[in-house]
Amino acid sequence: MAIILGDNQYGKAENRVVRIVRDTARHEIHDLNVTTAMRGPFGPAYLVGDQTNVLPTDTQKNTAFAYAKSVGIESIEKYGLALARHFVGDVEPIVGARIEIEEFAWTRAVIDGVEHDHTWTRSGTETRTAAITVDASGEYVIGGFKDLVILKSTGSEFAGFLEDEYTTLAETHDRVMATSLVAKWRFASVDVDWNATYSKVKQIMIREFATLQSLALQQTLWHMGRAVVDEIPEIVEVRLSAPNKHHFVVDLSPFGLENPGEVFIASDRPYGLIEAQVLDGTAPPAGESWRFSAGLA
Amino acid sequence: MAIILGDNQYGKAENRVVRIVRDTARHEIHDLNVTTAMRGPFGPAYLVGDQTNVLPTDTQKNTAFAYAKSVGIESIEKYGLALARHFVGDVEPIVGARIEIEEFAWTRAVIDGVEHDHTWTRSGTETRTAAITVDASGEYVIGGFKDLVILKSTGSEFAGFLEDEYTTLAETHDRVMATSLVAKWRFASVDVDWNATYSKVKQIMIREFATLQSLALQQTLWHMGRAVVDEIPEIVEVRLSAPNKHHFVVDLSPFGLENPGEVFIASDRPYGLIEAQVLDGTAPPAGESWRFSAGLA
Amino acid sequence: MAIILGDNQYGKAENRVVRIVRDTARHEIHDLNVTTAMRGPFGPAYLVGDQTNVLPTDTQKNTAFAYAKSVGIESIEKYGLALARHFVGDVEPIVGARIEIEEFAWTRAVIDGVEHDHTWTRSGTETRTAAITVDASGEYVIGGFKDLVILKSTGSEFAGFLEDEYTTLAETHDRVMATSLVAKWRFASVDVDWNATYSKVKQIMIREFATLQSLALQQTLWHMGRAVVDEIPEIVEVRLSAPNKHHFVVDLSPFGLENPGEVFIASDRPYGLIEAQVLDGTAPPAGESWRFSAGLA
Amino acid sequence: MAIILGDNQYGKAENRVVRIVRDTARHEIHDLNVTTAMRGPFGPAYLVGDQTNVLPTDTQKNTAFAYAKSVGIESIEKYGLALARHFVGDVEPIVGARIEIEEFAWTRAVIDGVEHDHTWTRSGTETRTAAITVDASGEYVIGGFKDLVILKSTGSEFAGFLEDEYTTLAETHDRVMATSLVAKWRFASVDVDWNATYSKVKQIMIREFATLQSLALQQTLWHMGRAVVDEIPEIVEVRLSAPNKHHFVVDLSPFGLENPGEVFIASDRPYGLIEAQVLDGTAPPAGESWRFSAGLA
Repeated sequence: MAIILGDNQYGKAENRVVRIVRDTARHEIHDLNVTTAMRGPFGPAYLVGDQTNVLPTDTQKNTAFAYAKSVGIESIEKYGLALARHFVGDVEPIVGARIEIEEFAWTRAVIDGVEHDHTWTRSGTETRTAAITVDASGEYVIGGFKDLVILKSTGSEFAGFLEDEYTTLAETHDRVMATSLVAKWRFASVDVDWNATYSKVKQIMIREFATLQSLALQQTLWHMGRAVVDEIPEIVEVRLSAPNKHHFVVDLSPFGLENPGEVFIASDRPYGLIEAQVLDGTAPPAGESWRFSAGLA
Repeated sequence: MAIILGDNQYGKAENRVVRIVRDTARHEIHDLNVTTAMRGPFGPAYLVGDQTNVLPTDTQKNTAFAYAKSVGIESIEKYGLALARHFVGDVEPIVGARIEIEEFAWTRAVIDGVEHDHTWTRSGTETRTAAITVDASGEYVIGGFKDLVILKSTGSEFAGFLEDEYTTLAETHDRVMATSLVAKWRFASVDVDWNATYSKVKQIMIREFATLQSLALQQTLWHMGRAVVDEIPEIVEVRLSAPNKHHFVVDLSPFGLENPGEVFIASDRPYGLIEAQVLDGTAPPAGESWRFSAGLA
Repeated sequence: MAIILGDNQYGKAENRVVRIVRDTARHEIHDLNVTTAMRGPFGPAYLVGDQTNVLPTDTQKNTAFAYAKSVGIESIEKYGLALARHFVGDVEPIVGARIEIEEFAWTRAVIDGVEHDHTWTRSGTETRTAAITVDASGEYVIGGFKDLVILKSTGSEFAGFLEDEYTTLAETHDRVMATSLVAKWRFASVDVDWNATYSKVKQIMIREFATLQSLALQQTLWHMGRAVVDEIPEIVEVRLSAPNKHHFVVDLSPFGLENPGEVFIASDRPYGLIEAQVLDGTAPPAGESWRFSAGLA
Repeated sequence: MAIILGDNQYGKAENRVVRIVRDTARHEIHDLNVTTAMRGPFGPAYLVGDQTNVLPTDTQKNTAFAYAKSVGIESIEKYGLALARHFVGDVEPIVGARIEIEEFAWTRAVIDGVEHDHTWTRSGTETRTAAITVDASGEYVIGGFKDLVILKSTGSEFAGFLEDEYTTLAETHDRVMATSLVAKWRFASVDVDWNATYSKVKQIMIREFATLQSLALQQTLWHMGRAVVDEIPEIVEVRLSAPNKHHFVVDLSPFGLENPGEVFIASDRPYGLIEAQVLDGTAPPAGESWRFSAGLA
C-alpha cells in the first residue's frame, strides 16, 4: 500500500469585504463575502511542512481587500475574475484559483419620497453568488443565488404517484408550494453583462414558478431551468436545489370550522428536497466549473 | 427557610401559523410565529403535579390555529388581543395571558409588470413583532420589529470621548454606521390603526437614522425614539436595542493604496451594544406591558 | 408632553477572550464570551451627542483582555467581579457596571490513556453563564448555564389536565421528556467557591430530572429548583426556562408494526415553554441582580 | 440547441428519527437525522409532471421510521444500508438510493456514581455522519464526523512561506491551532465493525493532532488522514476539511503588560480553510461513493 496525497486546496474563507463608492454625494455600496482557494504544488506543505510554495491565507485576504479598491466591484463575477487571474498569473507557483463570492443586497432608503444618498436597508432574503475558477485549462464562471424564498398559495398539485406498502399520503389538487431556492448557472463565456443577466435570470425563475400550474415541484424546477437556458444564450446549464417547505392544512373540524386551504402550519423538518440539472445538450464541457471543493464533494 | 414558588408561566412557543385569504382570486398571506403563555393558579402543577388548572399547551396551539380561521389576522395586534381575551375571559382558571407574535413579510411577485394573484417572495430582513398581555389589571400592547438592518456610509462621527489608561481608540469624524435594530413601542390604547402605525414608525425611524449627522449611536437612538413618541400620539414609550456593527477601514497603505473611507471589513464580534428607553413623561404606567417572561428577565 | 430619556446602558458585547495558562507544561484553557455594559450619567450623549462621560466600548474591550492577563480567570464570577469593580471604582463617571459572561467547556484530550498537556476538544452542549452587577447599592452575582440538553425515555406522564372545546390531546402515562434547559441562580454572597458550586448545581439538577417520576415538566422544574435552594446555602433563588422538546410516538400501525414507545419523531416547532422561579422566602431582596438589559426586558 | 434534463435526485431530508431500545430497564437511545434520496427514471415527472415512477418523499419518511423499528439501529451505517437496499431492491422503478445520516451523541447521566437507566445528556460537539449509496454498480459506504472542535495551545508553527507584494503576515513558531474538523472516510467493504471503527478513527485523528509538532495545518491534516488509512485496513480514503479558527495574540503592551502567548482573541471570520484527500494508491475506484448531491456539487 502506498498512501498518497490526492486533491487539495487551501485559502481564506468568508472575507467580509464592504466597498463604498463615494465619488459623488450619491454613494454606492457593495457588501460581499469572499472566499479564495489556491491549487498548485502544495505537496511539500502537507508531507513535510515546507511552506515554500504556500501564499499565506492572510495574503489572500489582503489581496481581496486591495482589489476592492484598485479594481473595484462592478459585479461579483468581474471582481472574482480579476482576483483569480491575479493569483494564477502573478504568483508563480499557483496553478489554479477558485473564488467564491456572496453578495448581500441593500435597498436605498426613501425619505419623504426621495432616495437617500448614503443610507440603505438590507433587502430580500436571497443572496447572489458567484464561483470563478481560473487555471491553465481556461476560465469558468458560475452565477447563482441562494435562499430565494418563494411561495404560491394555489396552482400546485401532487397526485398519481407511485404507492407501496409504506405509502399513506393522500393526493391533492390544490396545495401551498413553497421553497427556499438555491440556483447556480454556468456561463459559456466570460464576456457577459453580469448584472443585467442576474436580474433577468431571477425574473424568469419567479415567472415560471408563479405561472405554471404545477403537477410536482420537479416539473416547476424543469420549467425554471429550461426557460433560463432557452432565453439567455450565455447560460448553458442550470442546477437547482429546492427544499419542498411543507405547509400542512390544519384540521379544524374538531372545532366546528371548515378549512378550505386557508390555515396552514409551516413545518421545519423533514422537508422534501428536489435537485436537478438542466442543460443545453450542445454546450461545451463544464471543465473545472463545478469542482467546488477539493476535499469533500 | 421556606422555599416557595415565585413567578411562573407556561405556554406553546413558535406556532408557525400561515393564513391565506382566498375570498377572491387575489389571495393575501399572513405568515406568523405565535407564542402563547398562561398565568394563573398553577402552583399545584409545580408542587404536586396536579394538572387540574393546566390548559395543555397543545390546546393553546389548537386555539391559535382555530382563531386564524374564525377571527382572521387583520393585524398581529388585533389577532393577539382576540387570543389573549379568549384565554382570560373564556377559560376559567386562567388569570393572565401573554401572546407574542412575529410576522414575516412577503412581497407580491411582479410578472411582466403585473402583480401576481397568488405568488410572493419573502422580503426584507426585519420581522414585525407584537406582545399582548391581558389580565384583570388591563390590556397592554407592545408593537415592534427586530433585525432591521440599516447602514449609512457617512454622516456619523465619534469623538471627544472619555479616556483612561486602557483607551487606544482614535477619534473619527466620518465613519460607517450600521446596526440591526430591535425596537419595541408601547401603545397607550388598544384602539389603534395597527398596520398604518407600524408603517409610520418604521418610516420615522429610518428617516431619523438617515438624516441626523450622528455624533454617537446613542444620539441617533434618542432621535429615533423621540420622533416616534412625538409624532404618533398612541405611542408613549419606545425601547431600542442597537448593536453597533463595526465596519473597520482597512489599511491599504502597505500596498501603495489610499483608502479614504472606501474599503471596510465588516466585523462579527465584538460589537457595541446600545440600549435605551424613550418615553412620554406624562404617560400612564406601563403595568404588565414589559413583563416578557416570568422566569428569566 | 415632555419626552424623556429613561433607562439606558451601553457596552461591548461578545468579546471572545481565550486565556491559556502556561506556567507549567500542563496548560489550562479558559474560553469566554464577555459582554460589558456601563450605567451612569450618559444623558448628554443621547440628547446632544456629548461623549464627555462615555468610556468607549473599544476601551471596555481592551480592559476585558487586559484583565484576563493581570487578574486571570480563576472563575468567570471572580473575573467578572474584578471587571465590574474596576469600571465602577476606577472610572469616574461610571456608576454601575454589568458584566455578562459565557464560558465554553473543553475536555483534555486523552492520548494512549494519558491526559494531554496542551490539547482539548470542546465538550458538552451546555454553556456556563454568569451575570455580575456592581453599583452603589451593592454587588450581585447570578450564576447559570444554558442549553443543557437532557432527555429521559420513561418516567414522565401528563394527564388529568384541564379540557376545553379546543382540547384534542390524549393523556399519557409514559412519554419521552426532553428539554434544553436554561437556569440562572442568585447568590446571597460574593464569598463563594464558584467552580465547586457550579458543578454541584449541575449535578443536583440532573439528579432531580432523572429520578423524579414526573407528572408534568412543571413539577420537574420545581424539584430541580427546590433541591438547589435547599442544598446550597449560598443560593437563594433559581430561575428556570425549559422548552418541552416534543418527541411524538410515530404511528407504525399502517405498516403492521407495533410501537410501544420505541420510535419517535423529534419535533422542532412548536414546543412547550415552561418558566418558573423558585426562591427562599427569607432571602434578601434581589436588588439589581436580575436587571439584565436596560432597554428591552 | 436541445435542452435536456441532466442529473437529478429527490427525497426527504432531515427526518429526525429517535429510537429507544427498551427491552430491559436499561434503555438505549439512537438519535438520528436521516435524509433519503432516490435516483431513477424520473424524467416524466420533470418534463410533463407525470408521477408514475415517483415514490413520494412522505413514503420515504414513513419507511425510515418503520425501519427504525423493524430493522433497528445497531449502527447508522448498517441501518442506512438496509434502507438503501430496500429502496433499490423492493421498489421497482428506483435504480439508486443515497442515504445520508447524522447521529447526535448522548452520554448516560451518572447519579450518585451510578449510570442511570433512562436519562442522558447531549455530549460533545461532533456529529457522526454516514452516506450510503446503493445502485446496480455496487454498495458504497462513507463514514465521518463533522464539527469536532479541537485546539492545541502550543506545538504549532507557521513560517518560511511564500511572500508577494500583498504579504504582511509575520512568521510564528508558537501559536494556538484550532479547528472544527469535518472528516469523511471511504470503506473498501460493507463488512465492517462500524461502531468500533468510528471510535478508532476519532482516537487516531485526535492523537495525530495533539502529538505532531505542526509546521502547518496542512501537515497536520496529512498526518491525520495518513494514520487512519495506515492503521485501519477497511478505510482506503479520507477527506478532510478544516477551518483554521484563528486565535490572535492580543497586544497588551499599551497597558504595560506582557503577553507571551497567554491572552488571545478568538476570531469568527475570515478563517483559513484547508481541504485535502488522503488515499491508498492501490484502492479500488470510488464509484458512486462521493456523489453527494445530484444537482449542486
